[in-house]
Amino acid sequence: MIDVAELLRPYREVIEGELDRACRFPEGCPEKLAEAIRYAVLAPGKRLRPALVMMSAEACGGSREDAFAPAVAVEMIHAYSLIHDDLPAMDDDDLRRGRPTTHIAYGEATAILAGDALQSQAFAHLYSRISDPILASRLMGELAIASGASGLVGGQEDDLAAETIELSTFESPSLAQKHLESIHRRKTGALFIACAKMGAIAAGGSQEQVDALARFADAFGLAFQITDDVLDFTSDAETLGKRTGKDSGRGKFTFPDLMAAQRDEESRVELGLAVNPHDADLRSGRSEYDDSETTTRTDIDVGIALAREQAAALIQSAHDSIELFGAAGQRLGLMADYLLERTS
Amino acid sequence: MIDVAELLRPYREVIEGELDRACRFPEGCPEKLAEAIRYAVLAPGKRLRPALVMMSAEACGGSREDAFAPAVAVEMIHAYSLIHDDLPAMDDDDLRRGRPTTHIAYGEATAILAGDALQSQAFAHLYSRISDPILASRLMGELAIASGASGLVGGQEDDLAAETIELSTFESPSLAQKHLESIHRRKTGALFIACAKMGAIAAGGSQEQVDALARFADAFGLAFQITDDVLDFTSDAETLGKRTGKDSGRGKFTFPDLMAAQRDEESRVELGLAVNPHDADLRSGRSEYDDSETTTRTDIDVGIALAREQAAALIQSAHDSIELFGAAGQRLGLMADYLLERTS
Repeated sequence: MIDVAELLRPYREVIEGELDRACRFPEGCPEKLAEAIRYAVLAPGKRLRPALVMMSAEACGGSREDAFAPAVAVEMIHAYSLIHDDLPAMDDDDLRRGRPTTHIAYGEATAILAGDALQSQAFAHLYSRISDPILASRLMGELAIASGASGLVGGQEDDLAAETIELSTFESPSLAQKHLESIHRRKTGALFIACAKMGAIAAGGSQEQVDALARFADAFGLAFQITDDVLDFTSDAETLGKRTGKDSGRGKFTFPDLMAAQRDEESRVELGLAVNPHDADLRSGRSEYDDSETTTRTDIDVGIALAREQAAALIQSAHDSIELFGAAGQRLGLMADYLLERTS
Repeated sequence: MIDVAELLRPYREVIEGELDRACRFPEGCPEKLAEAIRYAVLAPGKRLRPALVMMSAEACGGSREDAFAPAVAVEMIHAYSLIHDDLPAMDDDDLRRGRPTTHIAYGEATAILAGDALQSQAFAHLYSRISDPILASRLMGELAIASGASGLVGGQEDDLAAETIELSTFESPSLAQKHLESIHRRKTGALFIACAKMGAIAAGGSQEQVDALARFADAFGLAFQITDDVLDFTSDAETLGKRTGKDSGRGKFTFPDLMAAQRDEESRVELGLAVNPHDADLRSGRSEYDDSETTTRTDIDVGIALAREQAAALIQSAHDSIELFGAAGQRLGLMADYLLERTS
């Protein structure tokens, strides 16, 4: 068992000091807005993204300090996205990690504005803290592209839309899985990839190193999301003894749902049957897997097991991506392994 | 009478082409999100901010083309701020220039996300369109600072708070005026100043030129806001024959209110009376100006006249700021003069 708390602790501590200093606003920032920003940014968290930035810099032979500015900037983007995701018009969450969400604590208008200000602050922070303008420009550019309409924000838009899309809308479970992966590659993956690249770039890493770390972060990000989906089932199963995970409860399909359905698809292919569950000839005979709501408990157990297998395969591929760093990439490898054991 | 439509037309036309091209998103951007972004950005408008960027570049001897990227970027920031300002939790506006606002047309979640994506897109646009990374970094930095918690967003937060602040809360009308000016200097002024500076910087202007254009934009921005407040009264007065302007109707105090109240304060000082309207000895005798709702019609007419005078003084100071540019600053001067004649 990896003691991930111990692994991440020094990174977390150092970056929380940096975040605290970065969120003291000069005159001109209204008191309430500054408080809301600090409330959101300094909320308890694992600080996985800043750790990824700093570990990537270290893998390239740089220091943690080299990566402070991009680590703070990505955490600001992450914090802004959480504030906006929690809004009533979005996921409508009142609590995050047991604390009232920002709009509950400070009102909706201030929460929207705190998110908006955090986004510009991320760029302002890179601009003011990176003395080499060529490096600053590249870091700002990477962050802007990852955060935008084809990255973080695009993924959130499709994720919200996915709440009302039934699994049966897709021609096959494997197409549905492609769609789900595409959502996650943008909603969470793009920022993870930006973390790894920015850390490497800040440390003066070579293009080969930047690319390797981007591949690592891509696999890591998707594995992170799959284990998140699995936890959504298993933590509920343990606590409540039934399948009412938050995402699955909203009719959103998750990786375990898809794995269960896809296994079914594979059996069909083996049996020489049509794959499309809408095929009229098949509907009467086999209807379990064309609507996640009717997926049986056994199917889901199989789905969970298969999702875990997929996460393990992604973690293996993450390890392969950073082989070239040798011992310098060890911490990144440990952080990846932790995903397979996470319970929260 | 300045034909401002004719003055701005070539700038507007060229920048609308640029905006159109800048808002075609690559694969990965959900269709609905892209549509909402285009709906907001390509909405009809005077494109004052892009014109200011381009005219500032021209004043420094540069070309309009030099200023295309920053002109597009500031308009993206402006469009994002309008989308978010119109949201139900903020100003709750259903219409903007006669068209449904973005959240009415595309739903609140997509509107929030379209604004978020536009903000990052502004930085991504500068990054991808400016080949000199030192220049790109400086432009992104100027834009990030102007857009942030002590700029655009901070001004909006205080502007929303001002809706529930009575004029009588302030010790004197002149302190209230300082507060109102501080709101506008951030909510609209900061971006106008960024426009002028970015145009000058993009054209390779000297620090003296950048500073002069920043002073021009500061005066221009405040005059813009004062004439906006005046229009809020006069366009209603003409149409409805009574004082029910949008801002003043919400209990928000405006420049004409303040001018009226401040004139009263000056009379008091002349008469040797206390300035603070809360002074108990004075409340019974003179209570008109400590609550804008009870300001009389004549007071407001005087306030409007005084606000117009202040706008004219600011425009004069804007002209003075750009004297050093000679004929190259002529268009900027004409654009400033137009504020005194605007009717919409």
